[in-house]
Amino acid sequence: IATKLPKVGTTIFSVMSQLALEHKAVNLGQGFPDFEPPQGLRDALNRAMNEGRNQYAPMHGIAALREQIVLKTEKLYGRRLNVDTDITLTSGATEAIFAAIAATVRAGEEVIVFDPAYDCYEPAIELQGARAVHIPLTVPAFAIDWQRVRDAVTPKTRMIMINSPHNPSGAVLSSADLEELAAIVRDTDIVVLSDEVYEHIVYDGAQHESVLRHPELAGRSIVISSFGKTYHCTGWKVGYAVAPAALTAEFRKVHQYLTFCTFHPAQVAFAEFMASTPQHYLELPAFYQAKRDRFRALLAPSRLKLLDVPGGYFQLVDYSAIRDEDDLAFSKWLVEHAGVAAIPLSPFYERAPDTRLLRLCFAKSDATMEAAAERLCRL
Amino acid sequence: IATKLPKVGTTIFSVMSQLALEHKAVNLGQGFPDFEPPQGLRDALNRAMNEGRNQYAPMHGIAALREQIVLKTEKLYGRRLNVDTDITLTSGATEAIFAAIAATVRAGEEVIVFDPAYDCYEPAIELQGARAVHIPLTVPAFAIDWQRVRDAVTPKTRMIMINSPHNPSGAVLSSADLEELAAIVRDTDIVVLSDEVYEHIVYDGAQHESVLRHPELAGRSIVISSFGKTYHCTGWKVGYAVAPAALTAEFRKVHQYLTFCTFHPAQVAFAEFMASTPQHYLELPAFYQAKRDRFRALLAPSRLKLLDVPGGYFQLVDYSAIRDEDDLAFSKWLVEHAGVAAIPLSPFYERAPDTRLLRLCFAKSDATMEAAAERLCRL
Ligand SMILES: CSCCC(=O)C(=O)O
Ligand SMILES: CSCCC(=O)C(=O)O
Repeated sequence: IATKLPKVGTTIFSVMSQLALEHKAVNLGQGFPDFEPPQGLRDALNRAMNEGRNQYAPMHGIAALREQIVLKTEKLYGRRLNVDTDITLTSGATEAIFAAIAATVRAGEEVIVFDPAYDCYEPAIELQGARAVHIPLTVPAFAIDWQRVRDAVTPKTRMIMINSPHNPSGAVLSSADLEELAAIVRDTDIVVLSDEVYEHIVYDGAQHESVLRHPELAGRSIVISSFGKTYHCTGWKVGYAVAPAALTAEFRKVHQYLTFCTFHPAQVAFAEFMASTPQHYLELPAFYQAKRDRFRALLAPSRLKLLDVPGGYFQLVDYSAIRDEDDLAFSKWLVEHAGVAAIPLSPFYERAPDTRLLRLCFAKSDATMEAAAERLCRL
Repeated sequence: IATKLPKVGTTIFSVMSQLALEHKAVNLGQGFPDFEPPQGLRDALNRAMNEGRNQYAPMHGIAALREQIVLKTEKLYGRRLNVDTDITLTSGATEAIFAAIAATVRAGEEVIVFDPAYDCYEPAIELQGARAVHIPLTVPAFAIDWQRVRDAVTPKTRMIMINSPHNPSGAVLSSADLEELAAIVRDTDIVVLSDEVYEHIVYDGAQHESVLRHPELAGRSIVISSFGKTYHCTGWKVGYAVAPAALTAEFRKVHQYLTFCTFHPAQVAFAEFMASTPQHYLELPAFYQAKRDRFRALLAPSRLKLLDVPGGYFQLVDYSAIRDEDDLAFSKWLVEHAGVAAIPLSPFYERAPDTRLLRLCFAKSDATMEAAAERLCRL
């Protein structure tokens, strides 16, 4: 059978996790913490299982968890969502992204994505018979050049995908960026897909510029987030999509037949834990900022150049002082010879620039960061 | 935004569950048990959470659970799968069905489905820009008329979807059926998608004729099953797809970007529980046969005519002696006036025949079956 996704190979995350295992390397590759979700959250999940919450959840998710999302969105972004019509729980942010694209993008249409881009965007677009139009972010700030966006919009443009805090760079969009975006999509049929899975991880006192703060954009956007990055449980795979009722209706038509509903006991657990421990996500910036700062201090003696990290839990490093080879070759060398697994940036690009950058995940315990830093400082 | 799925409304399962709640009806609609998964399975999941299995699982699922599927498939169907290349764990059978279709069916192609058909088949086909070609099953045996299949195959036919034990009818395919199918697809590029989520629920000593028993068919099929129906946890949403390596490779390309991986602690729990309690699925036919027989005995005094139930956990009943109206109207009347929620058959059809049939789920406790039967016998 001829492939529908000729460009797709094994994702770089699986490749590097596998290599990390084989070489017993310190794994700073795939983005997940090496510490556990709160005990209270695990206990709540166990209770839910033992209290009979083991059959299908409602297709769009349990009301109690959607209500917590309403509360959070109002508190943080000043937007009052409708609990019934605006929120759909999904099997992770990945499902939400796929469903959003499948629900709105048609064959022959175009979707603007910014490179480097998380690797699930393009295959989802391709499977619709649509085309991803890649616009590179500036380097090293990883900012959007809005003039390039204006130039790239055509009558076929159906969607613009943004991602802030940005994976892999950690760059964050400003309210001025959102104004630029609003001006571009105004009076068009373009849908904005805003991937905000790192929404609670922004540093140095900055506020996350959610699309949901901007009434005009929010009225035409599908905003995606997830519990995995916020509650240290990337393997629980509960995400959600927020969109105005008309877009949500289309989103749910696809979600309903993509997975129907997601793991029920975890929904109960998140609802309880958010209600009992609302400070968890408020404390997250300080929690990760301490890790970021510690990791940067540990790497300061190394020959790696550390880029700024405004958000997210990844540190980009420039390794050009160590070896002059492309990032795929260098990350392979690094895991084999230095025992540290990282993620190269080129797989996030359609046409990778000739940079010398790697992504290191610092959602790690002190011991892990220290072991990695010791190895990296020896280079 | 114009809809890509004009025919999709709220699924009949959600509609009837909602009505059941509103009218405090006994709910025999949506297919889920009103009893719990084994305590040992829940405990294993809790242990997995507390032993650090909370981050991403491998994209195609944890090895220990794939190994259990290998063991089971060899034991039951005499087929030795390759643990690495033939099995992918998914977020429920629904995701597996969607991924299988998205991976193999292209715009303009045709997929043969047998009506009545589970409602997620057609939207998945439609989203590929492909067309579902509906062939009605015979009534009341719900058998396949293979001559009609031969007549329906065209050069555009990319897939034939079968489902045994069949939802909603409970009909099972025989090995003669699979021979017919094999003869039709031989020397073509047609992929068989075999939905076998009720594989462990066949009655009266019959054996389940899995496609995996038939080497020729198995070599070109994607076989889908799930843990939800077998372990009484439809809300845990872990399913899987079995296919030869080349088909699995295409399947995974889509799965990887649809959900990436599924809830990790449940995978660990199923692997442990299958290893420690291999008799669970062997005892399932007797467990459900007792329920089926009890339910039929309870309904014997009613004016409902009971169709045969060779497999699955649904009882079809003919209500024509009670009221002469279509099944949508009758099921609405039934939930409102008799306090029993059932599923009408017409939503499973492109063009519903003028039958008077409802589907009742008997995966229920004695108390639930008795309460429902008492109400139904009063009609
Ligand atoms: C789904 S695997 C990738 C995890 C992740 O978010 C990342 O590493 O960028
Ligand atoms: C995913 S809701 C439908 C559940 C089911 O299998 C059925 O009722 O047929």
